[in-house]
Amino acid sequence: MDIEELQKKVIEFRDARDWAQYHNPKDLTISLSLEVAELLEIFQWKDAQEVEATKSDPDERRRVKEELGDILIYALNMCRAFGFDPSEVIIEKLKINEKKYPVEKAKGSARKYTET
Amino acid sequence: MDIEELQKKVIEFRDARDWAQYHNPKDLTISLSLEVAELLEIFQWKDAQEVEATKSDPDERRRVKEELGDILIYALNMCRAFGFDPSEVIIEKLKINEKKYPVEKAKGSARKYTET
Amino acid sequence: MDIEELQKKVIEFRDARDWAQYHNPKDLTISLSLEVAELLEIFQWKDAQEVEATKSDPDERRRVKEELGDILIYALNMCRAFGFDPSEVIIEKLKINEKKYPVEKAKGSARKYTET
Amino acid sequence: MDIEELQKKVIEFRDARDWAQYHNPKDLTISLSLEVAELLEIFQWKDAQEVEATKSDPDERRRVKEELGDILIYALNMCRAFGFDPSEVIIEKLKINEKKYPVEKAKGSARKYTET
Repeated sequence: MDIEELQKKVIEFRDARDWAQYHNPKDLTISLSLEVAELLEIFQWKDAQEVEATKSDPDERRRVKEELGDILIYALNMCRAFGFDPSEVIIEKLKINEKKYPVEKAKGSARKYTET
Repeated sequence: MDIEELQKKVIEFRDARDWAQYHNPKDLTISLSLEVAELLEIFQWKDAQEVEATKSDPDERRRVKEELGDILIYALNMCRAFGFDPSEVIIEKLKINEKKYPVEKAKGSARKYTET
Repeated sequence: MDIEELQKKVIEFRDARDWAQYHNPKDLTISLSLEVAELLEIFQWKDAQEVEATKSDPDERRRVKEELGDILIYALNMCRAFGFDPSEVIIEKLKINEKKYPVEKAKGSARKYTET
Repeated sequence: MDIEELQKKVIEFRDARDWAQYHNPKDLTISLSLEVAELLEIFQWKDAQEVEATKSDPDERRRVKEELGDILIYALNMCRAFGFDPSEVIIEKLKINEKKYPVEKAKGSARKYTET
């Protein structure tokens, strides 16, 4: 589905509740931070194998899906607060990252590359 | 633009660099957490008026846009790691939130409503 | 009370439960992150006046105290994982900060100073 | 060293710069969140073996020590903002945790115990 169409639904949800008044950038970002913490909690204390196993556990999948939903919804609300087109936000950042991590240097060595 | 089309571009970027091997859910979520922290840093120590002023400051707008880009990109990578359709993730969470925050109860009182 | 004495109590608590095996630095830091999120949740959506009011609300004070307790406990566990003396950790960082923020430059202008 | 003595040094640092005016609980907690993110960044993309190796790498140890210093300093500033005695904050939370995680139930099974 069109990301602008999805954002429109998110904003309709917000406006039906008169919540634009609370959606200042600082509190929206705090909300993003809290939703990411809820996602992180799912993987806390889990080793690599247990983390991988969440992908095939129906209950964990449902939790991950819900938290990702909240993160995407708050990110689209934040785009709206600044009047950004979400497609443009993603496309432009991919272009910046293309320059920051050129394929020939970054291939297969994310960690070492980012450290230098 | 179609969110699935945007996700495809994100995954092409990842695969051109052989980065799927690093994209386990725990580290992807840590990455989301770090990007949200970079966004939050923009609003640290700012009062309500200064937060509002970021919306019309070209330099702050550019920073917010870039951090939002990273957050959306990691969220789409995370959807991919679990095989979720991003549109579905958003639509389903909006439905859950509709029940959690019915318009008649939530209208204009986000804070009090969430506290009870 | 002596911070090393407090750390000793924290480690006794950990060892009585055989929890050292879980206390790798990555998961301890994730735990710190989640506890800070719980603290941050108390101030989410609150304006300056409401934030100030938490200081005199018995229930909010109790929540803040508990979350701060968890943060300090995890920080002391993390010091232990690296064999750091907690007093030294604080004293040394204060010295670094003294150089980074000299009184004559930083006085009364935290924000502007940090931005330049 | 006495934790109250350490807190006194932290507050002297703050007051020499007239920074109490910025130290509202919401921004102090945001600062804690950003410092924890800097600590978390050290362990991002690292597997269990690489995380363990940070303990004996002089450069990583120095970074961890500095970030832990900032976290402890902000936590002590936050205690001050609410007039809490730091020793009491830790001791009281350990007592709460004693009840929440009784030795006979929690021993050697942190994960399963916390999930139920």
